[in-house]
Amino acid sequence: MNLLVIGGSDAGISAALRARELDPTTHVSVIVADMFPNFSICGLPFYLSGEVSDWRSLAHRTVEDLEREGIHLLLQHRVHQIDPERRIVTVTDDNRRLHNLEYDKLVIGTGATSIRPAISGIDQTGVFFLRWMDDSFAVHQYLTERSPKSAVLIGGGYIGMEMADALTIRGIRVTVVEFENTVLGTVGTQLAKIIQTELERHQVQVVTNVAVESIREQSDTLLIKGSDQFETTADMVLVAVGSRPETALAQSAGCRTGFNGALTVDRHMRTEIPGIYAAGDCAETWHRMLQQNLYLPLGTTAHKQGRIAGENAVGGNAVFEGSLGTQAVKIFDLVVTRTGLGEREAQQAGFDPLAITLETWDHKVYYPNARPMTIRIIGDRATGRCLGAQILGRHGTEVSKRIDVIATALYHSLKVSDLIHLDLSYTPPLSSPWDPVQMCAMAWVQGVETRGG
Amino acid sequence: MNLLVIGGSDAGISAALRARELDPTTHVSVIVADMFPNFSICGLPFYLSGEVSDWRSLAHRTVEDLEREGIHLLLQHRVHQIDPERRIVTVTDDNRRLHNLEYDKLVIGTGATSIRPAISGIDQTGVFFLRWMDDSFAVHQYLTERSPKSAVLIGGGYIGMEMADALTIRGIRVTVVEFENTVLGTVGTQLAKIIQTELERHQVQVVTNVAVESIREQSDTLLIKGSDQFETTADMVLVAVGSRPETALAQSAGCRTGFNGALTVDRHMRTEIPGIYAAGDCAETWHRMLQQNLYLPLGTTAHKQGRIAGENAVGGNAVFEGSLGTQAVKIFDLVVTRTGLGEREAQQAGFDPLAITLETWDHKVYYPNARPMTIRIIGDRATGRCLGAQILGRHGTEVSKRIDVIATALYHSLKVSDLIHLDLSYTPPLSSPWDPVQMCAMAWVQGVETRGG
Repeated sequence: MNLLVIGGSDAGISAALRARELDPTTHVSVIVADMFPNFSICGLPFYLSGEVSDWRSLAHRTVEDLEREGIHLLLQHRVHQIDPERRIVTVTDDNRRLHNLEYDKLVIGTGATSIRPAISGIDQTGVFFLRWMDDSFAVHQYLTERSPKSAVLIGGGYIGMEMADALTIRGIRVTVVEFENTVLGTVGTQLAKIIQTELERHQVQVVTNVAVESIREQSDTLLIKGSDQFETTADMVLVAVGSRPETALAQSAGCRTGFNGALTVDRHMRTEIPGIYAAGDCAETWHRMLQQNLYLPLGTTAHKQGRIAGENAVGGNAVFEGSLGTQAVKIFDLVVTRTGLGEREAQQAGFDPLAITLETWDHKVYYPNARPMTIRIIGDRATGRCLGAQILGRHGTEVSKRIDVIATALYHSLKVSDLIHLDLSYTPPLSSPWDPVQMCAMAWVQGVETRGG
Repeated sequence: MNLLVIGGSDAGISAALRARELDPTTHVSVIVADMFPNFSICGLPFYLSGEVSDWRSLAHRTVEDLEREGIHLLLQHRVHQIDPERRIVTVTDDNRRLHNLEYDKLVIGTGATSIRPAISGIDQTGVFFLRWMDDSFAVHQYLTERSPKSAVLIGGGYIGMEMADALTIRGIRVTVVEFENTVLGTVGTQLAKIIQTELERHQVQVVTNVAVESIREQSDTLLIKGSDQFETTADMVLVAVGSRPETALAQSAGCRTGFNGALTVDRHMRTEIPGIYAAGDCAETWHRMLQQNLYLPLGTTAHKQGRIAGENAVGGNAVFEGSLGTQAVKIFDLVVTRTGLGEREAQQAGFDPLAITLETWDHKVYYPNARPMTIRIIGDRATGRCLGAQILGRHGTEVSKRIDVIATALYHSLKVSDLIHLDLSYTPPLSSPWDPVQMCAMAWVQGVETRGG
């Protein structure tokens, strides 16, 4: 059995590893566009901040690790064509020579590309994107050689937040310019305000409701202009306004696209073309609560989908159990997390959401170093079902695993009141007899009891 | 409606609060034996270590807080008799005057008492137990006035571990004497070894397989002798070998006892006597996985059972969803947790357990300060069901909320393989694309795949 994988990032490598794990007789080849298979793209901001000194350590596994698992890597290879009838993929190798590779099963994990907004001068020197290792090297070289004193980050999403942190660590004065009325809108305006305060505490300037329109060189710096007479200068610009699925190749092979232009897949990660699977940022993602395919490009999801695709490619029958949109990000000393639906999403999906916010302490306040935590639980008034949550707290307050308790509850369509019954651990240095998650659930239940169901 | 509660600790106060929350017209009185209602007994070791400087801060709520909730507190009152026919409780007040208190519903939350093992000389000055505030004051006074240089802790359970930590912080040389072949046997021998190393790293001497037989004064110190020629001296002894339910009063009213002598209750926390509920350390605990009543005295459980009793006392229909035996303890810089069944318990319950241990990092190792973590997942070979887990890691590695992810999964009788599908949060400073819990689950699944189901 020949399994061919296009793409050497999270989804592709997961597929390859799982296939080999289940059937060591399978021949597995992975086509990698660059020299960097299985790198932790989520780690790029920490390399650029200097917290990770050697970019090589960003590899989840080295080339040798992967080869030891029996995975054949085709580095610096580019795919030109997929022939799904003859099951042949045509590639050029690192010497630009053409080859035909036969496959029995094909996994497409081509990932996504950075969205390039319509900003005049976006190709200017000093303007960067951040997606692949090469992007990262370009930014790193610029930081090292040009020692920029100031940066504008276009986009206040996850990467924008992490890069605001990273560049500030390097002593660069950062301005975040966000098109929406708040940074990190995915966690709701209430938590976003706390994040904005944290950014400002670290001298990051936050500008919202502004669309950047042009970037041009002026003297030795860049002049950035936007809507509402926005105007500033900076020594570098990083554009992080999201990503779109990379699907041209798959489409040319006849694969259909759906939500947001991502490859249409079923929950077995099959495309509609026999023998071809797709996984990761190039593909749609089944949302467990909304029971439909969306586009939610995340590393965790890519790993899971890749594993499913790899298992099924060697004859398995694994089903992707879906995403809840669970995310965590560290911004300076804050950790901000979410899972499930936000209020607006819940409304749009036809629920009758009640959101309750609780401020409490991460552990018993008599024990030293208790720190505040903000929890917001969203439940459906009509059924009591838990719909989602956001938690924000200081680094070290177990915020990210607390959101995971709720994510695990959502996996089972729990009611908010069920959270109160969970047998969660307690010791005064780490929690309270009712964990903060349960205190918020009690407040939610009381909210429904007093405000009416 | 008159609700009378006997006992002012976790279960009793939870019952009172929930009753008032649901029905503010209810008259709620709580009979408290001492002056310290609603104190965090779990916090005593941290008061004795000096980490909590003022014992008053150990109160979950002050007397004023409770009275503001409309709860009438009868401090320093002792119950003499319950007359379940006439629904009258006879008490003596703080001036030793007798009173009859009428009730419509009665919640018994009398807690537990420390087990007093058959050790000759156990009533010696310098020998202590640790359960109530008064015990704590006695130890504190001795520590302050006598400045002991050395201590023997009899019992290597949770309290023994916390007190080893606490007394070491005070500069006292500690010896732990444990009857079993390992300290903290509830987390299994593999993790117990790591704990023992951590204790020894802090100069705590650990003696196992020894039963202490006698304590007597010798010169200015205590001579402690035990089986196997064990002999040592110490300036103080703390006995922490467990607790037994305090049920004499309830039994005299006709309440039945069951497992380990605890009060028999149904899942509505009702005793068999009409109008009488019991909750907390005096009562049995429904084990969610074993589907039977056991004796598992824990603060978290007492809070939950009290809440159920209080709700049902005012006409509710709440059901105790059961305990999983989830526990966490901090021992010096270690956090040790467990949930569900251990291997031996699983075997005894008729499962075919496979335990897989994984050592990994709390977060991506390229990000600074990654620390090792040991995870042990136990699953049933026959059905794949997850039966339990133990996790051990350094303080600050989100160990306690990671065990809670598994506890939440156990609540739903998940399979080990289901853990892999959970949409858990990820950012490199806090986890990996597969959380350590999921990595261990994958190792378990691979273990079954390779070793056979």
